[in-house]
Formats: sequence, structure tokens, C-alpha cells
Amino acid sequence: MSKEITSREQDYSQWYNDLIIKGGLADYSAVRGCMVIKPYGYALWENMRDVLDKMFKETGHQNAYFPLFVPKSLFEAEEKNAEGFAKECAIVTHYRLKTDPENKGKLMVDPEAKLEEELIIRPTSEAIIWNTYKGWIQSYRDLPILVNQWANVVRWEMRTRLFLRTAEFLWQEGHTAHATSQEAVDETVQMLDVYADFAERYMAVPVIKGVKTANERFAGAVDTYCIEALMQDGKALQAGTSHFLGQNFAKAFDVKFSDKNNQLDYVWATSWGVSTRLIGALVMAHSDDDGLILPPKLAPIQVVIVPIFKGEEQKKQIDEKVNDLVRTLKAAGVSVKYDDNDNARPGWKFAEYEMKGVPVRIAIGARDIANNVVEVARRDTKEKMSMSIDGLGENIIQLLDTIQTAIYDKARSYREKHITKAENMDEFVQLLDDKGGFISAHWDGTPETEEKIKDLTKATIRCIPLNNPEEEGSCILSGKPSKQRVLFARAY
Amino acid sequence: MSKEITSREQDYSQWYNDLIIKGGLADYSAVRGCMVIKPYGYALWENMRDVLDKMFKETGHQNAYFPLFVPKSLFEAEEKNAEGFAKECAIVTHYRLKTDPENKGKLMVDPEAKLEEELIIRPTSEAIIWNTYKGWIQSYRDLPILVNQWANVVRWEMRTRLFLRTAEFLWQEGHTAHATSQEAVDETVQMLDVYADFAERYMAVPVIKGVKTANERFAGAVDTYCIEALMQDGKALQAGTSHFLGQNFAKAFDVKFSDKNNQLDYVWATSWGVSTRLIGALVMAHSDDDGLILPPKLAPIQVVIVPIFKGEEQKKQIDEKVNDLVRTLKAAGVSVKYDDNDNARPGWKFAEYEMKGVPVRIAIGARDIANNVVEVARRDTKEKMSMSIDGLGENIIQLLDTIQTAIYDKARSYREKHITKAENMDEFVQLLDDKGGFISAHWDGTPETEEKIKDLTKATIRCIPLNNPEEEGSCILSGKPSKQRVLFARAY
Repeated sequence: MSKEITSREQDYSQWYNDLIIKGGLADYSAVRGCMVIKPYGYALWENMRDVLDKMFKETGHQNAYFPLFVPKSLFEAEEKNAEGFAKECAIVTHYRLKTDPENKGKLMVDPEAKLEEELIIRPTSEAIIWNTYKGWIQSYRDLPILVNQWANVVRWEMRTRLFLRTAEFLWQEGHTAHATSQEAVDETVQMLDVYADFAERYMAVPVIKGVKTANERFAGAVDTYCIEALMQDGKALQAGTSHFLGQNFAKAFDVKFSDKNNQLDYVWATSWGVSTRLIGALVMAHSDDDGLILPPKLAPIQVVIVPIFKGEEQKKQIDEKVNDLVRTLKAAGVSVKYDDNDNARPGWKFAEYEMKGVPVRIAIGARDIANNVVEVARRDTKEKMSMSIDGLGENIIQLLDTIQTAIYDKARSYREKHITKAENMDEFVQLLDDKGGFISAHWDGTPETEEKIKDLTKATIRCIPLNNPEEEGSCILSGKPSKQRVLFARAY
Repeated sequence: MSKEITSREQDYSQWYNDLIIKGGLADYSAVRGCMVIKPYGYALWENMRDVLDKMFKETGHQNAYFPLFVPKSLFEAEEKNAEGFAKECAIVTHYRLKTDPENKGKLMVDPEAKLEEELIIRPTSEAIIWNTYKGWIQSYRDLPILVNQWANVVRWEMRTRLFLRTAEFLWQEGHTAHATSQEAVDETVQMLDVYADFAERYMAVPVIKGVKTANERFAGAVDTYCIEALMQDGKALQAGTSHFLGQNFAKAFDVKFSDKNNQLDYVWATSWGVSTRLIGALVMAHSDDDGLILPPKLAPIQVVIVPIFKGEEQKKQIDEKVNDLVRTLKAAGVSVKYDDNDNARPGWKFAEYEMKGVPVRIAIGARDIANNVVEVARRDTKEKMSMSIDGLGENIIQLLDTIQTAIYDKARSYREKHITKAENMDEFVQLLDDKGGFISAHWDGTPETEEKIKDLTKATIRCIPLNNPEEEGSCILSGKPSKQRVLFARAY
């Protein structure tokens, strides 16, 4: 089975697609640019969602749900936001089909059921939400509003890639309203920290926290904070964003509140989101040429147990031992699967679970039972070890922790080795082509220079890292003075 | 606050709307027919979803996610299904906006970005899912497929009502594929049982399980099973449906499998769903003229504690006692809120939580502490009682159980009193107008008679109950012979 995967060296992009399809995470669909998230992929998303949801609630947020549709007149109210998304909007224009008189058994759009006002399928929900908040906010007592939504959104993309860029995707979008600018900025940074914490502790993906340049800012934001991760091909991936929206949306939708002194002011806003794109990041950060490598804290199956036996008698012995072990592991909250399906041979199962990235595989045969041991294999290092059945539960739980740490450390060490300084354009281009990763370089701070560098090299400024040290230097392109380095990379 | 609610007697429909809006469950939106589910309403939905999701998983189902869009050519493949939903479809025809040259700052649909094939926003997902299953199923080894999806769907409704009937709503839709007809029928019935169990044990809403007549069947189904509940105004509400789809969708999408003897056959299908409509059912089944009454097992806040004090010293004493109690209740899995917000007076809070249907309210004052007691009030009966602080946690947990049972019993007793036999049309009409509820009557089994009764009385056949006793009789309208009674009602 593993032989069917294209290797990273051969074709990185095909390797990624093979993992997604053959690992059972997702499938192409009949709809251009839309994917089907298969049960195994969705279980991974559920685990991610549950952890994030808990983190949101612990920081005081509540979930709500707003309409899928945004009337065009609301959509265009915040001009920059509208402009930013106008080119990728799916638009509902009619609300009824009728039988096609010229084609038996076929339907056609009923021209008499044309909407007076077109409806945009939300590419993001600031417009519909701020229009709603207008009715919820009168005084400072109504603030803050700390609301999150789990939803599907649609951005019409011309070039799609499973999980990384699809026309429809699943995400969460937090939308908060505050009485002061400082409170909104604090919220923006807090949620960035939540995302970074989630990426590092659960996904085992190290990230750099930073601020976007004006060019890369969310349409309608005053500041966009982001977390940036590094993939194994040296390309960066934006894994989450948190926006300080200032009073832009409050002004567009006329949302004012009276403060403690009865003065009217516009409300301050943030929004922040992560999406099913994180699954793409997870897959590309850790996996190898034999398949997926999933972090134990998010893996739908953390431990798989494969019996090796001849005849019913041996099977029965093994079942007994395994049942105890399954009970112990489940009681400890471990997700364990006992695969005693006799339609497939152990070797086939080994390859299958390797492909699916199950962190720990336990094989158990009749002789193992006689010796009171099992064979334990780590997915990340491929290491095999013999472990005593006594105390196995505890040792497996410890092993899962070890693996979680090991894959984080590996990804982090790769990332550390791939942040390189460039002092001029020649070095910059050579590093991009030969080594990849983040390139730390001086930039004169102008959108024009950023644009030129992008045109020349396809590299963009991923972020200006938070707490970036000041350093005198000169821009690698224009030679103009610069006060700090920023991080460039080619990116997904 | 409670004075603002219209009473049931005055205007039942307005009473319902008042509960939804003033209880903070949902809000109207700027989009025709779409609602905003507010945090309190969404928390209720989350509780329902979590319980159902667990029940689905315990019966072997996995979640997945399929596209929001259905290309028109797929949508029309199963003709009856397409015909059934054609008149209420939102249709995407374009994928881009552009700046309107005639209106500064405005956008218009870009006529050059017209889709070659229109996309229907899923009103239900059989078409897109069965088109996908075609790629997943070759042999009996690939069966059964037991998949569920949590999603939003759109059905363009002309007359909308919050939760009960909205253009967009949230639901789950199970879609399963089987090798035999019997297995599919068993699955259909199993999921009906899951729904009935959920409605009765969690929502505290008694339901009647039955089968729909041909007229009321899901478009594309061979048989539609349903659970029917009774609201306080004597109208019935369909609370969930489970469809045996036969081979209809397999034939429409050419999904065949080879059985153990290598014979090719079409796959057998089921689908089943419940939606945010359940929130409407819950609200209408239990609430009273003072506000919502929520069943403890689903209430977002099960217990609210309100301190009654003068001065900081008393407040401090109360806080200490309450903190202990909150800890005890939380440890037992009870959702408890301590409302010590000093912007509102206790009386206002009492009315507020009454409105919101919080099952148990605890008031605690300085004198109570001296006497080692608190005042406990039940939302359902309005009964107040003094309870010792010693062992309070356990007693509250027991009280929540008592309330859950009490509101179920009350609803069930109302329902039992509202199943009445009618022997002829005069009795039938009089019962409908004077008493409401389910009317058990003989029917000749023809769609024509059913239709005529509906035209004359607005009553429909809600279902033919499962395990319905045979009984000779004659149809109330046509006088033709009948072998069993069926249940009629006016319905939501």
C-alpha cells in the first residue's frame, strides 16, 4: 500500500494529494473546487474543533449562528472588505426551479423567481454580524460581545487544493465588540495566543506570531495578526489570523454605544478565524513517504491493536488479553481500535495504519502472550520495541506523550534551521531557491518594494514577528534604511 | 419583564414569538426568512447536538461533510426528489461581483462570471451524497456505509417562523447504504427509535412513532417514518423523520455493488434527520405565560444562584457559601451560574431567569446563612421551598431529575387527553375546532380522501402509528371500509 504514495522528493505536491486521498481524509467532489471531508478527516476536524471550542469558552466566548446569506447592500457597506472579497463571491440570484418545457425530466431556473436583491454566500461574516450587532448594542453595559461561530464559508477560488484552498471550507470565526480600542487590541492578541498555543501543543506545529504588512492585511482590518508555520518543502503556511478591525465595521453599519459618561462612540471590533486548512498544515508538517503522521493529541485513532494468530484457540487467548488492554486504555481516555477483521492480513493492516498515521501500533501474537509481551511500533520513528503486558496501559499513555513531544521537536528543529538571514537580493534569491524556509531580511517598509520583491521572487512578507528586535540595516531591494528585519517566504 | 409576554390565550402565535425573542434564543435577521441563533439558543442546540451525536456514534455512525452545492444535473437525477424540492431552491448562478460603473462604491453581479451549470444550495443532500457513494462502493465489503452530516440547508419558504420554518436551518442528515432491503429498513426503524428516545428522555416531549401516508412521504422515499409531538395549542408537530429510500437513489446515481456471489445489485438506502425545529417543539411543549420552561437535561443553565444582600460584609459571607455550592454542583456535572451582577436587583433577576426557563433558582441571603438554609424555586411548578445547605448539592441534583420527569409527565398527560376518536366528519370537525389534538379516525386509504379532508378541515394524517391495532370500520369521509384508524391533526 505504501508503495502507492509518491515520494516528497519526486513530487511534493502529488505526495500531499496522495496522503489526503489514500489516507482517507478527503475526496474530490462533483462540485468544482469543493471537497468531501471523509469520516477519518472529519474525525480529525472534530478533535481540533472540540479543543479549540473549549479554549474559546475558557476565554469567555459563546457560540452563535448567523445567516449563510449576506444581502448585496450589506455586503458592500464596508468598502474595503467588499472590494477584497468581491471577486470570489458565489451569488444567489433565484429562489425556484421549474420543469423545463423543452427537456423532459429536466429542471431550469424559473426566470420569474428572480430575487430583488442578490444574496452573497458569506465569504466571511463581518457584514451580516455587524448589521445584527447594531440591534444588540446601545450602551457600554451591552459590551463586550464575545461571540464565535462554527460555519461553512465560500470563496470562489480558481486553483483549489484539498484542505489548503477550496471554494467551500469549514471554519470558525470569532466576532467581538468592545468599548475601547485597547480592549479590542488585547482581545486580538489573546486569540492569536490561543491559536499559537493550539498549533504548538495540539497540532505539534511550531508557529511564528507576527503582524501582517498592509499588503497582506485582511480587507477591512486595521491590523492583522497571524501565526505562520513552515512546511517540509520550505514553504510557509498561514495557519490562523486575528484581526483588529478598529471602528471600520461599526462605522459602516452605524453601531454606536453610549459610554459611562453618556457620550456616544463607535464600537471597536475584532475578528479571528482558523479553518479546515489546519488539516493541510498538520499533514504537510509531519508526514513522511509512507503516509500520514498524526499528533497523538488529535489523532482519531491513537492506538491500533493487530492480532497475529493461527486458529480460533490462539485468537481467543489474544482477545482476552486485548480486551483488558482496551479497557485500560479507554478508561484513560485513549482512543483505541482493535482490528481483528479477518478479511485482511496483518501486513496489510500494518501498511494501512501507517498510511493513516496512527501514532502507536501494537501487534500481539500467541508467542507474545506466552512471554507476557507485545510488540509496540511508533509511527513517527518506525521504532519497534517489546513491552511487557504488565503496566502496558501506562506505558502506552506515556509513549503517546513522548511521540507528541518528538514530532513537535522535530518540526521545530526543522523550522529553526530554516530561518536564514539574507543581506542582499542575490543571497535572498539563492536562499529561496536552494534552501527555502523563512528569510529574515531588511525591508524599507513600503508596499511598493514588497510588491516588487513578490513579483521578482514569488516570496511575500509572511509577518513582522511580535517583539521583533530593532536593528539598523538597509533594504535588500531598495537599499533604503530599515529599522528591523521581517520574515519573507514563499507560501501556500 | 414577564408582563411583556403575550399570554397563550390571547395570541398563541405571538406568545411563541415573544418567548423566542425575549428569552434570547433567536432574532430576526436582515435576510428574508433567515434567523440569527443567539448564544442562549445556540447553547441549547449544542446540548441537543451533543446528545444526538453521541447516540449516533453509539449506533455505529461516523460524521462526514459534503458540499453545500448540488450541480443542477445531479439535483434533477432522482426525479421525485427533485420535483419535491424544486420550488424552494436557492440557486447560485454567478461567482463574481464587480464595481458598478454607474454607482460609486456599489457592486453588481459580473455578467461575465455566469456559471455554466447552476448550483443548487442543498435543501437535503441525497443527490450529492449518492453521487459520492458511487465512488466508494464496489462490493458488499464496502457496505454498510453509516454516515451522518451536521450542516446547514436551505429551503426557500414563503411563510417563515423562528425555528419552526426558516429558509436556512441547521440539522443533521444521516445517509446510509446497505446490501439488503431488510438491513436498510432495520436502520430506518433504529434511527426512528433513537429520535423518539431523544425526544422523550432529553426534550421531555412524548412522541408517537408512525409511518407517513404516500401524500406526506419524503420526496424520493419508499417509506417515511416519523415522530409526532403535540403542542399546547392542540396542533401536532413533526419532530423527526427517518426514510427508507429503497433503491431509488442508487438507481438514479447508478450505485451498484457485487454481493458475495458476485452478482451486481443496486444499493439500499436510508436517510434521517432532525433540525433546529426541535427547539421550537421544545419551547411550545413546555413553556408558560411567564416564559420558557426548559428540560433540565438540555438547559444551558440548569441552576442559577441569586444573592440577596446589603453591604459588602453580607456579600462576602454569601460568596463563601455559594462558592462551595458551585464547586459541588459543577463537580456533579451541573451547569450553574452565580449571578452576582450588582447592576440588577434580585426581583429583576428572578423574572429574567423565569423568562429564560432556568429549571432551578436558588436565592440566598444573610439570614438564610444564619439559618443554614437557602430558598429553592422550581421553574416548572413555581413551587418554592427552603432547603438545608447541608447536602444541598445532592438535593439539587435530585430536584433536576424530578423536574425532568415532571415536565415529561405533564406533557404526556396532556397528549393522552388529546387523542380522541371520531366516528364521522361532524365529530371530526367539532373535535378539531373545539378540542384539537390528535384525532383517531378511520380512513379509506386513498390519497384522494386524505386530500379532501385536508381541504375541508386543514387537518392532515400525521401518521399511521407503528403496531397500530387492526379494527374494522368505515372512512369518516367516504364511508368506504377501513381496517385501521389513523391519526389526524392540524399541524405546524
